[in-house]
Amino acid sequence: MTVQDSPTIEMPTSGFRREDFVSPDILEEEMERIFRKNWMYVAHTSQLAKPGDFVRHDLAGESVIVVRTRSGELRALYNFCTHRGAQLLEETSGSCGRAITCTYHGWTFDYDGELRSAPRMQPDFDKTPHGLKHAWVDTWNGLVFVSLADERPPSVAERLPDADFGEHQLERAKVAVEYRTVIEANWKIVWENGGECYHCAINHPELGRVMSVTRTGASESHSLVADYRFDRKFPLLEGMHTLTMDGQFRSKRLLGDPDSPPEGMRFLNWHSSIFELTAAADHAHIQTFKPLSTTRTEVRLVLMVHADAVENEDYDAEGIFELHRIARGQDSGLCEKTQRGIGSRHYQPGPYNTVYEYSSQQFRHLYQQAMGQL
Amino acid sequence: MTVQDSPTIEMPTSGFRREDFVSPDILEEEMERIFRKNWMYVAHTSQLAKPGDFVRHDLAGESVIVVRTRSGELRALYNFCTHRGAQLLEETSGSCGRAITCTYHGWTFDYDGELRSAPRMQPDFDKTPHGLKHAWVDTWNGLVFVSLADERPPSVAERLPDADFGEHQLERAKVAVEYRTVIEANWKIVWENGGECYHCAINHPELGRVMSVTRTGASESHSLVADYRFDRKFPLLEGMHTLTMDGQFRSKRLLGDPDSPPEGMRFLNWHSSIFELTAAADHAHIQTFKPLSTTRTEVRLVLMVHADAVENEDYDAEGIFELHRIARGQDSGLCEKTQRGIGSRHYQPGPYNTVYEYSSQQFRHLYQQAMGQL
Amino acid sequence: MTVQDSPTIEMPTSGFRREDFVSPDILEEEMERIFRKNWMYVAHTSQLAKPGDFVRHDLAGESVIVVRTRSGELRALYNFCTHRGAQLLEETSGSCGRAITCTYHGWTFDYDGELRSAPRMQPDFDKTPHGLKHAWVDTWNGLVFVSLADERPPSVAERLPDADFGEHQLERAKVAVEYRTVIEANWKIVWENGGECYHCAINHPELGRVMSVTRTGASESHSLVADYRFDRKFPLLEGMHTLTMDGQFRSKRLLGDPDSPPEGMRFLNWHSSIFELTAAADHAHIQTFKPLSTTRTEVRLVLMVHADAVENEDYDAEGIFELHRIARGQDSGLCEKTQRGIGSRHYQPGPYNTVYEYSSQQFRHLYQQAMGQL
Repeated sequence: MTVQDSPTIEMPTSGFRREDFVSPDILEEEMERIFRKNWMYVAHTSQLAKPGDFVRHDLAGESVIVVRTRSGELRALYNFCTHRGAQLLEETSGSCGRAITCTYHGWTFDYDGELRSAPRMQPDFDKTPHGLKHAWVDTWNGLVFVSLADERPPSVAERLPDADFGEHQLERAKVAVEYRTVIEANWKIVWENGGECYHCAINHPELGRVMSVTRTGASESHSLVADYRFDRKFPLLEGMHTLTMDGQFRSKRLLGDPDSPPEGMRFLNWHSSIFELTAAADHAHIQTFKPLSTTRTEVRLVLMVHADAVENEDYDAEGIFELHRIARGQDSGLCEKTQRGIGSRHYQPGPYNTVYEYSSQQFRHLYQQAMGQL
Repeated sequence: MTVQDSPTIEMPTSGFRREDFVSPDILEEEMERIFRKNWMYVAHTSQLAKPGDFVRHDLAGESVIVVRTRSGELRALYNFCTHRGAQLLEETSGSCGRAITCTYHGWTFDYDGELRSAPRMQPDFDKTPHGLKHAWVDTWNGLVFVSLADERPPSVAERLPDADFGEHQLERAKVAVEYRTVIEANWKIVWENGGECYHCAINHPELGRVMSVTRTGASESHSLVADYRFDRKFPLLEGMHTLTMDGQFRSKRLLGDPDSPPEGMRFLNWHSSIFELTAAADHAHIQTFKPLSTTRTEVRLVLMVHADAVENEDYDAEGIFELHRIARGQDSGLCEKTQRGIGSRHYQPGPYNTVYEYSSQQFRHLYQQAMGQL
Repeated sequence: MTVQDSPTIEMPTSGFRREDFVSPDILEEEMERIFRKNWMYVAHTSQLAKPGDFVRHDLAGESVIVVRTRSGELRALYNFCTHRGAQLLEETSGSCGRAITCTYHGWTFDYDGELRSAPRMQPDFDKTPHGLKHAWVDTWNGLVFVSLADERPPSVAERLPDADFGEHQLERAKVAVEYRTVIEANWKIVWENGGECYHCAINHPELGRVMSVTRTGASESHSLVADYRFDRKFPLLEGMHTLTMDGQFRSKRLLGDPDSPPEGMRFLNWHSSIFELTAAADHAHIQTFKPLSTTRTEVRLVLMVHADAVENEDYDAEGIFELHRIARGQDSGLCEKTQRGIGSRHYQPGPYNTVYEYSSQQFRHLYQQAMGQL
């Protein structure tokens, strides 16, 4: 969804069509053109510290494992045996053990996917072509991304040239809370909901005590047609420092350089990768969305603190999670209500609020490009 | 399904084809040609007494609300916001409050559907074209019907010229019992079952103590090809007055004129609207059927008594419900058994009993006309 | 799937394609070309001893009953009424009573399917053409098979010319244990799993104490291209006599001639009928597999002992069942893991182990013939 900035581009003035929210064919095309093509967030590098450590990533009908090899690199491997196709690793994360072993017939693969042994095969059997198939993997600010594209896409850093989280030193963070929930709504409804704050004033009273819930969209964004939006100044209210219930830090061990901790908050909304990152000085917060069907979306929240922060001493998990959890619950209800409404054959895409739903317009424009609709 | 009476019309001699009972394409066409086109029963007017009162009606993929406006009329409005499409009213019935408000972004509509306010939209935003979309509503004998047709169909009274329930004064009744259940069978199996009493003798012993379960069909009907069947004389047995376990009244406050209560029972079977109405002097009984899928049907039973009848004083709800509930359970089992049987690829439509399954023949004939199969 | 033995036939060297495991269209074609065409095991004749006894058989969208007629023959009848299509017999097995009666409108059929009475039909109604539709039935070694083919296929005995279970006198056995379970995997994964022991060594420790789990496939089979595999010598370990936890008999009343009980075990794997039969001297063991959807398969296990064996005196059910139950559970897990793996769009059929997966090669070859893929 990379596009050239241009003053002549016409932004969409109304929302997605009904079929975009309910058609299985369109979902399959979205899988092909968006989810199997772009970089998708998988894990923090601290979850893949030692050789043999793996994290599983299931998306778009595929199961991929990211493994730390003996030489210290990361490899993304399709999670099925090249013999009868049995799934290799069934846990979400952990260690492969001494090798990646298929428990069906005992075939064994190295961490980099090469077939090491295939017991009792016929004498003329050649192991070489039967290694595990691989996908692409990239690391950015300590965050691991996978792409299922045929060709390796430009790196995450190339895709997000000015999304600067350097001060927060996220590569030295660790995961404090991970949370998954399912919303009965199309993923685009969920993504649009997360990108606009037009709905905040009457739906998020707790957020409204910490941040400005009437901020507009366009003014803070660096480009009308970028495939992401990066804000250096998150609109915290006076005296507020982070997204917690009272706006105060809930981790004593701050992110970044101890002598010069990050100031304010930064915010990234990456449309192509359905990836949202917010970083305050005490904790960073990732939100990603995965379609399970036309009307079901899995939401994943990851909260990170400094790697050295000790739970219940330096930070309490509920303290950094509470506001996010509450807002997530409120938003989920709104998204599900929207999915129920757009089911009508008489539904017509309504007008965008061009002041407050700027991010939705930006997203819909990029989506139409990615889907070949422009 | 209105047709001209004609002696040359050939009635079908055998039942529906297998595909009529299992094909999703045929169900979609039935939705278009029957359920979204004809008048469908929604509520009794007493449930919409004051301005702002509403009843929700979900059918054929649509959600519609019927609202009493400030000027006292009824309006049928599609239940989604014209901004992002969120569903507006989630309860089955109740009061809208001071306006119909979308809780997503705060857009507010009058009871007649006009957009009254859209907070913080861009300055040049014109509210006029963004009112709620409307459907058609009609009232007949105090019963509220909705149609989702593009053009307003002829009124219910015009469709049922001689279905006379005047004596029962149903507009002065109220709902005493409302009951919904789901049957695992195609809606046409359920409708045919309700229209014939060939199966009664061996399946409804309780009914058989109150009414003649060997009555034939054709003789009591006023027309071979009408799209409804109206009987002025329901075949009660000697000494029986209503459809209760012992055939005696279970509401002391009778329907109609207190000085001249209705005599006997009247019965309406309206094929086009999948609507059945039986009225005795003590209570009236509505049955409607709504397809949920090719093999699932929601049944709704509504029992009405006089508006002034006081529960547990003038009537007991179980007393007027019991026989209907028992017969409904027996019929549901028969319908589900039929659905299981017609799943066979070797199923061929069987012969109609032209004496006792007259109503099925009449229905199938009208159905074939409505579906363009004749 | 009958083929001519020929030395020039090329056996497949790799497994089924991804679409073979997930496509509903292919499943429908398998139903047509395999499951509705071939003989499918239904019951043991002892379950159909008296006139009116029936066993119900549901497969491939059809429900068929096998009934013992008054003249002592077996008839296979489609289980729906020829009037409105209602299912006739809802139990799995039992006695029809004095006739096969439809409880909807009271139509009554003889055990051979003829319509005996249709109460209160119009005077000119002719019962003759409204008998129940029939399928084909055959008996082999006391086992009852049904075929839904249009034409009666060659008998089971003709299809299995040298599968000799005579010594075991299975027609004088009875069912001791019947067990059904559902596996979340395509039926071909389940069938291939049952036909090879390449996976046994690392997955079936209990089996490995009784039989050789490293036996190869081809050497024991009589023909490379037969549609079944019959082994006269099941590879029991020294001192082992049957498939129980310790390899010792668990029924004192042995099968066959009491003066000369069967020696060793016999094994049949019949690809076309998805039917497996193992017979030891103390008990015989049937396994059949029925697709419920592309990714769900019902497994049925039937354990038989001599008709005169008395439970808890001559045999204990758990004793003859335990090893089979344990192995079934282990195999089910492997099959489900394989189904999960082959879902990847990158899955390519892997190579067969031509020594140990001979049976899979044989099956895939016959399958391709049956499906018109060769």
